[in-house]
Amino acid sequence: MPVNLSTPDPASLSPVPGVELGIACAGIKKPGRKDVLVMRLAAGSEVVGVFTQNRFCAAPVTVCKEHLHDEAGIRALVVNTGNANAGTGDDGLRRARQTCAALADALGFKPGQILPFSTGVILEPLPVDKVIAALPAAIADLKPANWGEAAQAIMTTDIVAKATSRKVAMNGQDFVVTGFAKGSGMIHPNMATMLSYIATDAPVSCEALEAILRHAVNSSFNCITVDGDTSTNDSCILIATGATPAPVIMDDGDPRYGTLRDAVTEVMVQLAQAIVRDGEGATKFMEIRVEGGRDEAECKQIAYAIARSPLVKTAFFASDPNLGRILAAVGYAGVADLDVDRIKLWLGNVLVAENGGRAPSYQEAEGARVMAAPEINVRVHLGRGDALATVWTCDFSYDYVKINAEYRT
Amino acid sequence: MPVNLSTPDPASLSPVPGVELGIACAGIKKPGRKDVLVMRLAAGSEVVGVFTQNRFCAAPVTVCKEHLHDEAGIRALVVNTGNANAGTGDDGLRRARQTCAALADALGFKPGQILPFSTGVILEPLPVDKVIAALPAAIADLKPANWGEAAQAIMTTDIVAKATSRKVAMNGQDFVVTGFAKGSGMIHPNMATMLSYIATDAPVSCEALEAILRHAVNSSFNCITVDGDTSTNDSCILIATGATPAPVIMDDGDPRYGTLRDAVTEVMVQLAQAIVRDGEGATKFMEIRVEGGRDEAECKQIAYAIARSPLVKTAFFASDPNLGRILAAVGYAGVADLDVDRIKLWLGNVLVAENGGRAPSYQEAEGARVMAAPEINVRVHLGRGDALATVWTCDFSYDYVKINAEYRT
Repeated sequence: MPVNLSTPDPASLSPVPGVELGIACAGIKKPGRKDVLVMRLAAGSEVVGVFTQNRFCAAPVTVCKEHLHDEAGIRALVVNTGNANAGTGDDGLRRARQTCAALADALGFKPGQILPFSTGVILEPLPVDKVIAALPAAIADLKPANWGEAAQAIMTTDIVAKATSRKVAMNGQDFVVTGFAKGSGMIHPNMATMLSYIATDAPVSCEALEAILRHAVNSSFNCITVDGDTSTNDSCILIATGATPAPVIMDDGDPRYGTLRDAVTEVMVQLAQAIVRDGEGATKFMEIRVEGGRDEAECKQIAYAIARSPLVKTAFFASDPNLGRILAAVGYAGVADLDVDRIKLWLGNVLVAENGGRAPSYQEAEGARVMAAPEINVRVHLGRGDALATVWTCDFSYDYVKINAEYRT
Repeated sequence: MPVNLSTPDPASLSPVPGVELGIACAGIKKPGRKDVLVMRLAAGSEVVGVFTQNRFCAAPVTVCKEHLHDEAGIRALVVNTGNANAGTGDDGLRRARQTCAALADALGFKPGQILPFSTGVILEPLPVDKVIAALPAAIADLKPANWGEAAQAIMTTDIVAKATSRKVAMNGQDFVVTGFAKGSGMIHPNMATMLSYIATDAPVSCEALEAILRHAVNSSFNCITVDGDTSTNDSCILIATGATPAPVIMDDGDPRYGTLRDAVTEVMVQLAQAIVRDGEGATKFMEIRVEGGRDEAECKQIAYAIARSPLVKTAFFASDPNLGRILAAVGYAGVADLDVDRIKLWLGNVLVAENGGRAPSYQEAEGARVMAAPEINVRVHLGRGDALATVWTCDFSYDYVKINAEYRT
């Protein structure tokens, strides 16, 4: 069951002027399931994205990268679930391009103005005819208030839809940032997560939007892991429609830049944490914070070693303060000159280990009390610098094995 | 249940002239459990070892390294289960040294001639008084034929004891290589595995023995993973008693060197595979072979990415030929310039993927047939060189979660 996460109230999701969304049933995997989403963007929208670094990147990821380089300007996105169109070779690229051509044709755009996305099973041909046949219904459904339905339509093994909004006032003018995301397994993003779409009506230059995206992704989707598996389809798209008239935010010299960047980051952090809270089989949500490192990279390396360890994750599932497993993960994380005698480890506010061993003040009952909660903070101090990093993860339960053993049946 | 692994017939384990073994109950974790092992070595034995690279290495590992540098010559080993004496700081070092001093005293050696080993729970003080109190009984039990009992005594979550022997004829003279090992969780060795002891009666120089150990460990214990967690206590010890008189094997110029190296390697490969076959919750045994790489390192990196992936391991548990997960792991293994269109993937003898997608000849029924077996070969060809590497691993089952969630209860 998702950890402290419920379906967002549709009324809390602010439409973004310049964006319309439409949903349809293509019957890709199951009949009657809403599995195709179309987003139409106002002319002049700036669109930027980051994508998986998996060498087996999916066909739609390759096509997205091509089209984002196109000068024509992105005008629509199309997403299908039930099939990832990954590990599908040249034939997969052809099918992704066919989908773009069909949507471009129906909307009066060029194929290079469409971004395609797919999520689902890998290594099987995308049933492109079904996707194309569903496009007219999705187009007929296009409306500004469909954000909750869109979040629902892109789910795969997700239990809860993930979406959130922020309102930002800049120079006395109100703008909106709304985003949604999906993903609950094969989650260990490297530059982005499964699928996530964030849009604002503020007018932003492409360069400024790229900078905001990089900042926000590094503080959000690049800080989570469910199972350490980096997907073939990870995509995170940031859209600025500029549909609300105002002077364009050109760069970080504009005082509105920081305000917008923080709002986008907040939305992405909430979506990234929602993905972990709804991680496959998750029963606990953990924040792993590593401080006192020489640089952020080594802090993140150690935080991820803890967050990925099956032994740590099963101990959290069991609410067992088996803290030796955390220390072991710190030790094998690959930081060669780590002095373990300087390391301190806290579980919540309880000091657990110091001077290379268990803290004299530590009482197992206190550790057990912290572990019993559904949200657990782990803090490690390396004692060798001022850098820090935070990673969010979930536990490893029977249900993780069950979900992934039965995924295709 | 262990995969194709049963308790070795004690009659199949050849005693090694120059080695005696004795077992006793110290009651460290459970009363009545045989949990202390003493090995006494003939004077003049050469002893070499490799140890965990975990920065949080256990106190006995630190003491072993000190004593192996000692000039006095190792004459005895002492192993306890039930407590790892890891994450125990200076107090842990004191307790490891106390154990050595007590055994040295009882046997008439110096403390620096003893190697101590511990395995079990981390971060708890070693009940050193119990260990010391059990030494007289272990010493009274010392005999050459105790190898099967020794393998039994060092088990923790192991279901089956792991030991094997080889007889080697060199220059018309017969010698013996016998070894035993333990380990079934926190298994992702980096230089060695949990605990393993291999002895021969051949006379070998320290330098030649070091070279044989390095070769054999790299082809055996450094090729396995159960859960990707590198233990704090990994130790692999190779002993040459020289108790059977013959000219000393000084280096690889001696024609007997290769014969002995191959026999030691065979013993270590069998023990390493036994650890995987008895991996926590294991129901399947997989050999992951990556060929056609530029160097062995990149082949091993990709093989380990596959072998460590929770998604791959749960698919094997389910006997589900979800081969996209294997391709995804190849893609995120971190080999940046991999051309996925050149990769081929076989499951057993069935070609599954080529040219970046599913092989046209592939039939899911054939993949399912291979996956149904308890032993599965995965072969990946990278198409960019002649190097190769092999890694052995097991699947990820409900029981892995159960065993590790309940380990301390």
